[in-house]
Amino acid sequence: MSATRLDGTLCAAAIRGELTPRVAAFASAHGRAPSLHILLVGDDPASKVYVGAKERAGVETGLHVSVHRMPATSTREAVLGMVYQLNEDATCDGILVQSPLPAALGKKAEQDVFDAINPSKDVDGFHPLNVGLLVQGRATLAACTPSGVIELLERSGIAIAGTRAVVIGRSEIVGKPMALMLLQRDATVTICHSRTKDLPAVTRDADILVSAIGRPGFVTPAMVKAGATVIDVGVSPTSDRQQVASLFGDRSERLASFDKKGSTVVGDVHPGVWDVAGAMTPVPGGVGPLTIALLLKNTLVAAESRAAR
Amino acid sequence: MSATRLDGTLCAAAIRGELTPRVAAFASAHGRAPSLHILLVGDDPASKVYVGAKERAGVETGLHVSVHRMPATSTREAVLGMVYQLNEDATCDGILVQSPLPAALGKKAEQDVFDAINPSKDVDGFHPLNVGLLVQGRATLAACTPSGVIELLERSGIAIAGTRAVVIGRSEIVGKPMALMLLQRDATVTICHSRTKDLPAVTRDADILVSAIGRPGFVTPAMVKAGATVIDVGVSPTSDRQQVASLFGDRSERLASFDKKGSTVVGDVHPGVWDVAGAMTPVPGGVGPLTIALLLKNTLVAAESRAAR
Repeated sequence: MSATRLDGTLCAAAIRGELTPRVAAFASAHGRAPSLHILLVGDDPASKVYVGAKERAGVETGLHVSVHRMPATSTREAVLGMVYQLNEDATCDGILVQSPLPAALGKKAEQDVFDAINPSKDVDGFHPLNVGLLVQGRATLAACTPSGVIELLERSGIAIAGTRAVVIGRSEIVGKPMALMLLQRDATVTICHSRTKDLPAVTRDADILVSAIGRPGFVTPAMVKAGATVIDVGVSPTSDRQQVASLFGDRSERLASFDKKGSTVVGDVHPGVWDVAGAMTPVPGGVGPLTIALLLKNTLVAAESRAAR
Repeated sequence: MSATRLDGTLCAAAIRGELTPRVAAFASAHGRAPSLHILLVGDDPASKVYVGAKERAGVETGLHVSVHRMPATSTREAVLGMVYQLNEDATCDGILVQSPLPAALGKKAEQDVFDAINPSKDVDGFHPLNVGLLVQGRATLAACTPSGVIELLERSGIAIAGTRAVVIGRSEIVGKPMALMLLQRDATVTICHSRTKDLPAVTRDADILVSAIGRPGFVTPAMVKAGATVIDVGVSPTSDRQQVASLFGDRSERLASFDKKGSTVVGDVHPGVWDVAGAMTPVPGGVGPLTIALLLKNTLVAAESRAAR
């Protein structure tokens, strides 16, 4: 293993450490802490875990966090009504609707609900107005995961300007905003996806390679230029022992740990890439913790921006 | 010269021919033609020429076109006031503020004025909300020039999905929306710019190469893969005889024509690329006419969309 480990947990702790005094200063100036309101509709177990983690992290950083739980049977109108109420609430700084909404509401409903969030409270950065401002290089609130990747690169002293950057995946949440943020910082950016031909030839050009597709071990050593910075955004939970053994080796610590717990999370990047890359994020402990840190930062920024108007 | 000539004038005529019956149908259904309102502030000679061309083309296609002329001494508030008035005017379907605004108003004023346009009337597709919707693959109104390039590619039977596409230039008006539109159509897209290193190595990977930087003859044959489709968005007026001679040759028709008129317009792509590319747009007669055709189409689409709500 030769690549430098880009430690997302440490980086996230540093970011959160910087937020704490700003949060306190806001609270002191405005008589209330910046507030994050999370809307959790239904009983998706993974969503409950994510919301719990966001709530804990927010409270630890001094934010006021309210979780609004609505039953899985909620109508589209009820969910929209809750969003409108939070839009109007002057003490609400950030609104996060946990995805996915119950399937019964339909895909269109999720889009409608996300679109209904006041852009100045859109701490996920998903509203099209905020996405457009990101394209134009003047976003106040941008998607948390790619923002976290930028923080990690910059705080690790990894140059972005003038590099070739390749993003695998073109989701609205990671791939596209990631590409736009790298472009904004003067990288020459290529976006790849399922329709890309000869992907390894493209990715081998990358000085910075970001994978965000959620396919365990997809990025192999042959796809990576020697010395490249590799950012693994994929986080796939697995309970498949054979998959873990094949990725990490029969006698790996990871497999031993898997055998104790019965499950683990694996990234898009094959562990063999550690021998090729110059710097790389682990999974877990890479991009994951940064996403939450940037959510907290967005909440503070939303509060400060609204207060400054 | 071996490359197929992608004739923008013909393509634009085809698009406008398709618009005419739709415009007539709208007029018949609503008792008025779809209307385009152009705001022209100041006396920039080039702007007057552009506005005149847009007005003529609009009227020819059956649109109602109003040009609102304001003096160069207009205040920011007066210009914004005109935009607000047009936003409120139910008979106004499309608003175009001709750029640049007088320098005296400042760069920030231009952004403020563009942002003030009701997104549903934003026929230039510059409003951040429309840009964000483009990123998310659900734009109703998108920038005219890259939309015109897509029309030209599709109507010429040039496949986009699965290709490598390279865009030189990252402007808000062409480069970025062009890249997003190609990505949306399943190309693997790379955006290059002034900070790109070894640009020829990047552009030689392109099956579709779009140049939009406004530097005459910048794209040389050595930068182009044999058989690639080359789209020249650059339009630079020149009165430099030596430049024309060096680009087109001492005994070229273009130089003879230049010697009669004293000026011409040249593209980003060196004429030598005709011998390498598989298909290519000329300048003039390539992308230029398409931009206006798409402006007319956007005006009709804006009118139809507002009427359907």
